[in-house]
This record gives sequence, structure tokens and C-alpha cells, in this order.
Amino acid sequence: MATMTAAQKKAQAKAEYDAFLDVCPSRKLLDRLSDKWVVLVLAALGGDCDGTPQGMRYSELSRLLAGVSQKMLTQTLRALERDGLISRTATPTVPVTVTYELTPLGGSLYGTVRALKAWAQDHMDDVLAHRATYDASEA
Amino acid sequence: MATMTAAQKKAQAKAEYDAFLDVCPSRKLLDRLSDKWVVLVLAALGGDCDGTPQGMRYSELSRLLAGVSQKMLTQTLRALERDGLISRTATPTVPVTVTYELTPLGGSLYGTVRALKAWAQDHMDDVLAHRATYDASEA
Repeated sequence: MATMTAAQKKAQAKAEYDAFLDVCPSRKLLDRLSDKWVVLVLAALGGDCDGTPQGMRYSELSRLLAGVSQKMLTQTLRALERDGLISRTATPTVPVTVTYELTPLGGSLYGTVRALKAWAQDHMDDVLAHRATYDASEA
Repeated sequence: MATMTAAQKKAQAKAEYDAFLDVCPSRKLLDRLSDKWVVLVLAALGGDCDGTPQGMRYSELSRLLAGVSQKMLTQTLRALERDGLISRTATPTVPVTVTYELTPLGGSLYGTVRALKAWAQDHMDDVLAHRATYDASEA
């Protein structure tokens, strides 16, 4: 079998997974990634705060993601671990120290979620102005 | 008052909006952007299907985003219009033709949401393999 070129591989992957399609599993993945807490956890572990990727403990994440409930943070971390985007390491101290880090797969997504978070922060004023205009025209 | 440099403006914006913070309005915006239908609508209008940004009618969007309910699509389009990310143009044909397009602000977000959708499609196999391994180890 002839080796596929990068372009052919890309075309095949596109044919296999197309998130526009109802039945495509990648739409479910997109749904999971499209979550505020997923974006914020990946941004935190990728080093969006201080510029370098870093392992973080549960309590550190909980503090940084101000307002996240324990249930929501636990669910988010577990789902990300299951998807292979973060790894969980337990060190046998007393009490046990649990650290979360981006895997290489999670790292490959980091740039995109960081860009999404940055866009929201950079364009908040524009969006608020548009909302005010829209609401005034509806009134 | 001295003019701020681009770097200073950026630093000020970062200080004003930080989506990690509970009270920050940019977290609410991130929450809205972190929506599967928002990603798919912006991807469609940005030309993720055929490579060029394009105006699309409601019925075209509805067909492309297979499985979206009428209520969900209407809500999504209205929220994106209110935020200034898409524009809505009604042409007085019989029946009226309504077309949606990305605004320049929406266009500035297009690259990021397209990257998110592409990542989900490109890495679906990896994620499914990780899930299988994780589930087997839990069993």
C-alpha cells in the first residue's frame, strides 16, 4: 500500500470526523472541550498565569479558578484525565499530594484554548458595547 | 496624558479582565463562546466548509449543523448578533430572505474556533484510545 501524503491523510481524517455532522464522535468531543472550566483548567496547567507549563495541586487549581465548585472541578479533572489531556500523579506524602499536569496531547490543545481565553479578555469591551447598542435598538 | 504603548495597553486590559476571576465579565463571555453551537456557527460562516467566508441563510445553517433544534439555532444566532459577532440582513423578497455573516469582530475570533473544531476532529482517535485505556484500568 502506497504511503499517503500529509495532504491525503488530512483529507481522510476530515472525511472520517466532521463535527458538523450529528453522528460524528468529534462533535461530542467539541462539546466537552467547549466548556468554560475545561478552558480555564487547561490554561492554568499550560502556564497562562506565569508563562511556564506546570504541575498544580487540586487546591491550587481550586484557588485560581475562583468560584468553581468542588464537584465541578473534580468532574472536569476526571474527564480531562480520561481523555488523556492531563495526567494525575499521587505522591505518598502525609497527606497524599496529588498533582495535575498537561500531557503532550493536552499541550497540543493548550495554544488554542489560551487563544480563546485571551480573545474573551481582549474583546470584552467591544462585546459590551455591541450588547448595549443591540439592547437600545430593541427597546 | 501620555499615550500608552501597545504593551502597556495590553497589560492594562489584562489587569481589567481576567477570566480566572469569578467576578470578571470576560468569564461570562468565555462561557458563551464555549458552546458547541457557537463554535459550529462561527466555523460555518467563516467558511470552514468551503474555504471562503460567506453569508448563509437560516435554512442553510440549519442543514449544515445537522441535528440542531430550531430553538437552539435561533437563540445562538440572536446571542451572536447581540454580541456583535455576526450580522443579520433581511432582504425584502417574498418570502423575506435573511442572511447571516461574520462581522469583523466575529472574523477576529474565527481562526480560534476553527482551530478548536479542527483539533477535535484531528485528535478524536487519540482521545478514544485514552478513554478505552482509562476505562479498562478503572474496571
